[in-house]
Amino acid sequence: MAAHPVSPLAPSSYPQLPPIAGAQFATGLSGMRYKGRDDMLVMQFVAGTTVAGVFTRSSMPGAPVEWCRKILPGGRARALVVNAGIANVFTGKAGQQSVKATADGAAKALGCKANEVYLASTGVIGQILPAEKLVAQLPKLKAALSGDKWMDAAKAILTTDTFPKLATATCQIDGKTVTINGFCKGSGMIAPDMATMLAFVVTDAKLPADTLQGLLKAAANQSFNCLTVDGDTSTSDTVLLFATGQAGNTPHAKPSDKRLADFRRVLTQVMAELAQLVARDGEGAQKLVTIDVTGAKSDASARIIARAIANSPLVKTAIAGADANWGRIVMAVGKSAEPADRDKLVIKIGDKPVTRNGMVRPDHDEAYATKHFKGTDVRIAIDVGVGKGSARVWTCDLTHGYIDINADYRS
Amino acid sequence: MAAHPVSPLAPSSYPQLPPIAGAQFATGLSGMRYKGRDDMLVMQFVAGTTVAGVFTRSSMPGAPVEWCRKILPGGRARALVVNAGIANVFTGKAGQQSVKATADGAAKALGCKANEVYLASTGVIGQILPAEKLVAQLPKLKAALSGDKWMDAAKAILTTDTFPKLATATCQIDGKTVTINGFCKGSGMIAPDMATMLAFVVTDAKLPADTLQGLLKAAANQSFNCLTVDGDTSTSDTVLLFATGQAGNTPHAKPSDKRLADFRRVLTQVMAELAQLVARDGEGAQKLVTIDVTGAKSDASARIIARAIANSPLVKTAIAGADANWGRIVMAVGKSAEPADRDKLVIKIGDKPVTRNGMVRPDHDEAYATKHFKGTDVRIAIDVGVGKGSARVWTCDLTHGYIDINADYRS
Repeated sequence: MAAHPVSPLAPSSYPQLPPIAGAQFATGLSGMRYKGRDDMLVMQFVAGTTVAGVFTRSSMPGAPVEWCRKILPGGRARALVVNAGIANVFTGKAGQQSVKATADGAAKALGCKANEVYLASTGVIGQILPAEKLVAQLPKLKAALSGDKWMDAAKAILTTDTFPKLATATCQIDGKTVTINGFCKGSGMIAPDMATMLAFVVTDAKLPADTLQGLLKAAANQSFNCLTVDGDTSTSDTVLLFATGQAGNTPHAKPSDKRLADFRRVLTQVMAELAQLVARDGEGAQKLVTIDVTGAKSDASARIIARAIANSPLVKTAIAGADANWGRIVMAVGKSAEPADRDKLVIKIGDKPVTRNGMVRPDHDEAYATKHFKGTDVRIAIDVGVGKGSARVWTCDLTHGYIDINADYRS
Repeated sequence: MAAHPVSPLAPSSYPQLPPIAGAQFATGLSGMRYKGRDDMLVMQFVAGTTVAGVFTRSSMPGAPVEWCRKILPGGRARALVVNAGIANVFTGKAGQQSVKATADGAAKALGCKANEVYLASTGVIGQILPAEKLVAQLPKLKAALSGDKWMDAAKAILTTDTFPKLATATCQIDGKTVTINGFCKGSGMIAPDMATMLAFVVTDAKLPADTLQGLLKAAANQSFNCLTVDGDTSTSDTVLLFATGQAGNTPHAKPSDKRLADFRRVLTQVMAELAQLVARDGEGAQKLVTIDVTGAKSDASARIIARAIANSPLVKTAIAGADANWGRIVMAVGKSAEPADRDKLVIKIGDKPVTRNGMVRPDHDEAYATKHFKGTDVRIAIDVGVGKGSARVWTCDLTHGYIDINADYRS
């Protein structure tokens, strides 16, 4: 992990994640890149565990993403192996061989099939992953498996992150209490779709794999896909949801079943918490920025507009400098090329509207807007005046810290 | 003009632009924002001057852009009034009134019709343009009109630019020598389409307005539309081409006429020179970056890929830090969502190929690539291996200077 100062937006305390029956894990140090910190995670799941996944839409996916996509139709998971430091992306046939060797090694060590072993790697692109260094640690990690060191798991997968990211909640399915734990990593190269580079969610709910996939996709759309740090979509973005089935609930099959309503709500909530933690740890971030777009032609159109604002370097630097330069928000709406009515556009900064009739309001309170931009929780709302579509996006400001981190990542 | 240090990429000398028969101009200080420098330009054109224009595609265009679009079908120009400091964008009805008052004032002062007066404004968004301050200067400027102070004209329209941008060349139409002079401004909020905020090109060629429009559009596509600094499309982007008709050439009507081949070539060359000067003055720029994409499904697809690379904060910061982190180029190609074959992708840095068979070449010369990135003229070429489309884009690196300038523009 790079020695960058901890984000000022880091949470002041971390949740204590309870064990999930049927899931055990351990962390270790592979020695492939980092020193003095764990850089690999192994999770073992009980037989019968189902799995769902969503992945980067990049046309240049890493070998681990291709591996997970290939085995996902099986719907069963017995293990997860994650490493930080080398992403195993753009590594050609050698990358595929690394993936195969890691899955074979884990299958042998943990007594399952290779196509039940999920893999994720994060770090530098273009370096070949030395699978043997991961495999060599597996016996030791198998001996150390336990169910409650979630903080260790969350820390072992970090790269440029400055703090670990965890969330937990419980919900009810037919009166049975179900737990959902999640942790993730991500800080730069973060953009929709599939904002975080890696996120893992584990629940003891009993749910068929198809159902789980439907639930995950919907929740990702309201959480990780609402996130952008720099507009740069990663080649490795992976969200996996494992369900060990130990909670004893009835496994309803339809994702839209009303008896799964509480599960849907809480899954989205856990994933949204994780997504916001990524924005709070955006490289160089000093402020968490929430952008709400309403009045768009459609929800999809609203999201494009919200992202255009969230990814605008001029908007992001204005926020960094606490310059409530709302003209740059007008610019960003305009460049999105989505339908918007300039003369009905309402921009709100914090709780106060800024514009009316295609111009600044006579009562615009610039001191208030500037004060709001000086805070660490910046809220911008835009009604574009043409329809009923809406979307929310989280991002952060663009600061000298981003340049520091990214002009010097590999050295 | 902000007191930023002159770009290290500024040209070491400036061309001397000759007079263009039929075009006279003068600069002045309106007093609306800047002190100690001229901030307005008036040009007067001889009767019979034709005009062509291309403008921002923003859905939030400024009032001057709307004015120019409205009068452009007339095809005739007698005057141009430009001011720097206030952009007259997002100013509602008051903005339209400012435009009308300026055009009326210029028409009265110069003895022409208001709908022959072209207008452009650049600067802060959302402030109402005090037209009376421009109009008040017109009698003095009219008295000072001359044909050879192009450097003064180029300087009067600057905002955050750190150097003036001028280009000139001559060509032949049917054996008659024709001159093309151009100057422009632009430094941030620069993206295709319509990269520079303001560019003005003047020629003594005799060409019908329709013909001129076809020629300008084609040349813009090979020049200003190949340019991006920060991906932020301005609300004010304007390129106007005026043809005074004094060169005495035969006014061929078809833009594709082979007798206009030399004019087409030289017009594109002048505009491409201006576009590159904008990239060289990108806010905070330390390096000019040329990105060539080949092997794409179409030229349009190649341009999207080239822009995805050129606008990637991670690529731009890697270049700033002279970190030849080609993995970020892979990422940017992948995020573009355009067809590309990962395993056929060839990335070249400078003159040397980096990748083959979906991975780094065994003979990759990292020392060479790093040295190339340390220079001020960075060249990246990517063949995406799926077709015959190609495109070139110019941009610059993303540095602390960009943050400095943009977190503090209005103060």
